[in-house]
Amino acid sequence: MNIERLKSVPLKNIKIDDLYWSKYINTIFENGIMYQWDIINDRIKGAEKSYSISNFMIAAKRKTGKFGGKVFQDTDTAKWLEAVAYSLEIKENKELEALADWTIDLIGDAQCSDGYINTYYTIEEPGKRWTNLVEGHELYTAGHLIEAAVAYYNSTGKDKFLKIMCRFADLIHDTFGEEEGKIKAYPGHPEIELALVKLYYTTGEKKYLETAKFFVDKRGTKPDYFSEEIKKRNYKFIFPELEGFDSSYYLNHKPVREQNTADGHAVRNVYLYSAVADIAYEYKDDGLMDTCRRVFNNIATKRMFITGSIGSSAIGERFTCDYDLPNNSNYSESCASVGLAFFAKRMLEIDRDSKYADILERALYNTVLSGISLKGDKFFYVNPLEVIPDVCEQNTSLSHVKAERQKWFGVACCPPNIVRTLASLGQYIYSTGEEELFVNLFISNESNISVKQRNVKVEINTKYPFKSSIDIKLNTEESTEFTLAVRIPQWCSLKSIELNRRKDFNYSIDKGYIKIKRTWNRSELLCIEYDMPAQFVYSNPKVRSDVGKVAVVKGPVVYCLEEADNGKNLGAIAVDCSAKLVERYEEELLSGTLTISASAERINDSGWENVLYSTKKPQTEQTKVRFIPYCLWNNRGKGEMLVWVRYKD
Amino acid sequence: MNIERLKSVPLKNIKIDDLYWSKYINTIFENGIMYQWDIINDRIKGAEKSYSISNFMIAAKRKTGKFGGKVFQDTDTAKWLEAVAYSLEIKENKELEALADWTIDLIGDAQCSDGYINTYYTIEEPGKRWTNLVEGHELYTAGHLIEAAVAYYNSTGKDKFLKIMCRFADLIHDTFGEEEGKIKAYPGHPEIELALVKLYYTTGEKKYLETAKFFVDKRGTKPDYFSEEIKKRNYKFIFPELEGFDSSYYLNHKPVREQNTADGHAVRNVYLYSAVADIAYEYKDDGLMDTCRRVFNNIATKRMFITGSIGSSAIGERFTCDYDLPNNSNYSESCASVGLAFFAKRMLEIDRDSKYADILERALYNTVLSGISLKGDKFFYVNPLEVIPDVCEQNTSLSHVKAERQKWFGVACCPPNIVRTLASLGQYIYSTGEEELFVNLFISNESNISVKQRNVKVEINTKYPFKSSIDIKLNTEESTEFTLAVRIPQWCSLKSIELNRRKDFNYSIDKGYIKIKRTWNRSELLCIEYDMPAQFVYSNPKVRSDVGKVAVVKGPVVYCLEEADNGKNLGAIAVDCSAKLVERYEEELLSGTLTISASAERINDSGWENVLYSTKKPQTEQTKVRFIPYCLWNNRGKGEMLVWVRYKD
Repeated sequence: MNIERLKSVPLKNIKIDDLYWSKYINTIFENGIMYQWDIINDRIKGAEKSYSISNFMIAAKRKTGKFGGKVFQDTDTAKWLEAVAYSLEIKENKELEALADWTIDLIGDAQCSDGYINTYYTIEEPGKRWTNLVEGHELYTAGHLIEAAVAYYNSTGKDKFLKIMCRFADLIHDTFGEEEGKIKAYPGHPEIELALVKLYYTTGEKKYLETAKFFVDKRGTKPDYFSEEIKKRNYKFIFPELEGFDSSYYLNHKPVREQNTADGHAVRNVYLYSAVADIAYEYKDDGLMDTCRRVFNNIATKRMFITGSIGSSAIGERFTCDYDLPNNSNYSESCASVGLAFFAKRMLEIDRDSKYADILERALYNTVLSGISLKGDKFFYVNPLEVIPDVCEQNTSLSHVKAERQKWFGVACCPPNIVRTLASLGQYIYSTGEEELFVNLFISNESNISVKQRNVKVEINTKYPFKSSIDIKLNTEESTEFTLAVRIPQWCSLKSIELNRRKDFNYSIDKGYIKIKRTWNRSELLCIEYDMPAQFVYSNPKVRSDVGKVAVVKGPVVYCLEEADNGKNLGAIAVDCSAKLVERYEEELLSGTLTISASAERINDSGWENVLYSTKKPQTEQTKVRFIPYCLWNNRGKGEMLVWVRYKD
Repeated sequence: MNIERLKSVPLKNIKIDDLYWSKYINTIFENGIMYQWDIINDRIKGAEKSYSISNFMIAAKRKTGKFGGKVFQDTDTAKWLEAVAYSLEIKENKELEALADWTIDLIGDAQCSDGYINTYYTIEEPGKRWTNLVEGHELYTAGHLIEAAVAYYNSTGKDKFLKIMCRFADLIHDTFGEEEGKIKAYPGHPEIELALVKLYYTTGEKKYLETAKFFVDKRGTKPDYFSEEIKKRNYKFIFPELEGFDSSYYLNHKPVREQNTADGHAVRNVYLYSAVADIAYEYKDDGLMDTCRRVFNNIATKRMFITGSIGSSAIGERFTCDYDLPNNSNYSESCASVGLAFFAKRMLEIDRDSKYADILERALYNTVLSGISLKGDKFFYVNPLEVIPDVCEQNTSLSHVKAERQKWFGVACCPPNIVRTLASLGQYIYSTGEEELFVNLFISNESNISVKQRNVKVEINTKYPFKSSIDIKLNTEESTEFTLAVRIPQWCSLKSIELNRRKDFNYSIDKGYIKIKRTWNRSELLCIEYDMPAQFVYSNPKVRSDVGKVAVVKGPVVYCLEEADNGKNLGAIAVDCSAKLVERYEEELLSGTLTISASAERINDSGWENVLYSTKKPQTEQTKVRFIPYCLWNNRGKGEMLVWVRYKD
């Protein structure tokens, strides 16, 4: 950690116009954010109620009534505001800005005189603040509000919301810490930690960073604060399902720096470790950074679904053990993939290693997107890799799995988390160092990026991930020497590279990046051609759920079979891995997408009526099957879906 | 249903001495029943407490204290007494009989003046009788006590217990029914119905049958009694996990005779349908009998694991939908296989069709036995077909699956249910009609059976299921004409049959039975040779969990791979179905058993360290694997187990 951490490029400097992403982003900007405004105002018929604005109205004494929803309902509004902030940074929208300002005023009115904000505790349990850190989600909620305030300030320059949240952050700083009279504890659900780091980065106020560090350091130390707190509350739980959970669920089974594997509730884990990476970097704490590397590595090499999702068990929404990756009963929450992207981004910025971007890209291109419909108005919370609608509707142990995207959820962490991620997608494309410009993701865009205090106009043109040639144009306002670092994803090999139509130039390859150090001038063109055909991917043989199966993958995009293309009982299909995969861009399908066809054999179930077990070997027939990108499934009605398909030798 | 129902042969007339079964039965008689006595007296260290005798002591006012355990704890004692009754019928044991008599006196003392018996409601909730039929388990508990009393009377001729239970049954009859002033409801957990039928058969008192019929007829009618009752209790639940369950869980989603599929809690289902079959027969109700056939058929052809177990979902311990048979997350409760045997036995007696015995045999030979250790002192509640200890210990959604048999359970329905089933195994071997003697199971034994009021000494000698020749000796006290019906299991084909060493005699085959009608004399010998090699069995291609996999089966016995024989990561194995299965009886292994070896290939995981997904196809190597009977797994320490194994073409 002797080198400086890479930085993101402000969203306002990035203009995305991309084959894969723009349809989603446009949908979010055109409809999604306003849909979500209607949701948080409880105006969408047939959707689960949010109560979020209503709760703020009551807490602000603008109306009377009862608190609605769960303890963390304020975060629906927070995440909406954060998404609005990003969208305003990218595109002016006076109406939206007015709604946001109105909402910020409302939050201000709901703030207590000492700075505290939380509608549940204000309305329902005044006087009970900070008495249920295990479940109360006050710090979690504060974290989301702080993230929103930081984003709104960065986007609009308006500081009202930031000041509101600084007052709350000051209160948190004064309430928690090792000092005499402060509460020596940490939140059940991490989130405040990464938010306080962001607030520190924005305000320069070090006490916010210190409080975040305190939360991380304290976690998992003895005596166990949570057990004591639960005892004090006479073992009464807001969420009764949490009662029997062990401390690893909360990531406080041991001090953070002693954790070697990715454990506990998946979202809590990656939110926490995002902050741990920040803090390890800020305090130059090599031991803590090694912890981050160990935990990240454990996820990436033993506990992550191929779709970049995490959380193998629905009960506890959590990590379980190495290689336990069930395809139909997993949780794979959309939020967890959002959080995994956060964690990966930080590791990438600190270690400058493409392997982190590989995971980031998998999470974004597959599970973050599968969580939202093409129209932007329906959402998955849970993202299985195998769905049979009859089964998930009738097997009560799979009731967490929905066969269709939903309008909203009572616990609605995921939909606005997806929306704020899409609205801020630009942050993942580039990183800049003192003398480096990193290109991490291949998303077509035009940007203005500051390198060595000079503006560089950068343009990426590509049809990635469906095609694998990438053109990068650089236009430096003045000749400037810096290193351009272009990522080689793990699934790509370099086929050709030309700078200004010439092959004879110097570059090196380091940690998965092509590095070109030179003086850049106006009108430079780098053309890269990767080899990235659609491929069969196998899993580690220890993954019991995938053994004898393959996934079809092109670059970061994981494909799936859907009933709409391939009929019922997808399990009867076995693809022929020796035959060629045929790629075809289909303009009319699913708003335009690349499909992949394969040869396969299919077990014929004729003769099996009313026979459950038989010594007669099932007969097979030759067939063709069509794969579509996993993220696009269930945009054509309810039906089966399958990622890992059996293969025949 | 114009023909009379077949009858069982009294246990006292059957002396079993069998290669497959006797080791278990002897263990039960020598240790198991006394172990269980210690359990219900809370004397086994490290085992979950039963509290059962203690609760009766308190209810009988022989001591003071608090009720312990769940509402249905009385059934531990009831099932113990039932097992004792069967054991005494088979073998005199004065000490055990004295303990049983002491316990019966205790139950008598715990009986209320009006006949009511239930220690939970007597101690904990006096005055609340019959107010929680959904969850209270009073009628369920009564049913088990009645079954025990009937068994004890049939075994010992002593009628004290029977009279105690008749008083309670009288109270139940006076409390429930269509008549004015009676409660018009039925139990949440069926069991009383089949017990009342047994009580009717033993006492001839028709009102018991009528009450059972009332419970069956009332179930699922509108208005829904349970919803009303739950409302009256202000939605308070004894078992909070039941709160969200729909009415199909309780089998009251529609009237019983309208049910077409096997739904709901698996044990409740088969206990209920055992009684429904009884009642359909007794009332010559063809419509209701067709319901039984439909439900049974749905189980047998769409909802039963190959091991004769049922219950695809842990949440709800229940049936789900057709072909949903997950191997590692299923419930497959031991009790449910016991209940399936009950249901199958009744259908067999009524329809005289071997297909019912096929299911009965599968349940007994596999899941009933897998529930108990070879030493008889440890038990499985849940019987998965695939276990990876790390996974079921760390995946919180699989916490119902134990990687090792347990000493006892807080909810201990299964262990005593297995013990009473083993103690009464003889009841399943033969059935008699007016002029027929049916041989259903091939278990070596010597018996005295009454056919047409004449004693027939029958001896079966066989090493079935490991060998498939069966010798049946008949010794008729006087020459008697009757039909001997010998079952041809679905997995057998008839290779040769000789009567008194001659092949030229008449027989017919009808509904899976070889029927020989003649005058039988002294010293007749029927030698049957079945073809029943070890075989690969495939599942219906609609069973997603088994597609591309085979099970190795010999006759009724399902085999499995165990880590002790085949190392870790059994999922990496794919058997070669074209190669020969090699059978070998191994005297020293697992108290003597037949193993089956197969050729296989195995995915080699070298090169996969720290790689989760790769385009490199995993390499395989040739190997041999050894299968052991499923019921014997986990008798050699903790390790992986697998029934459905991938096959290579």
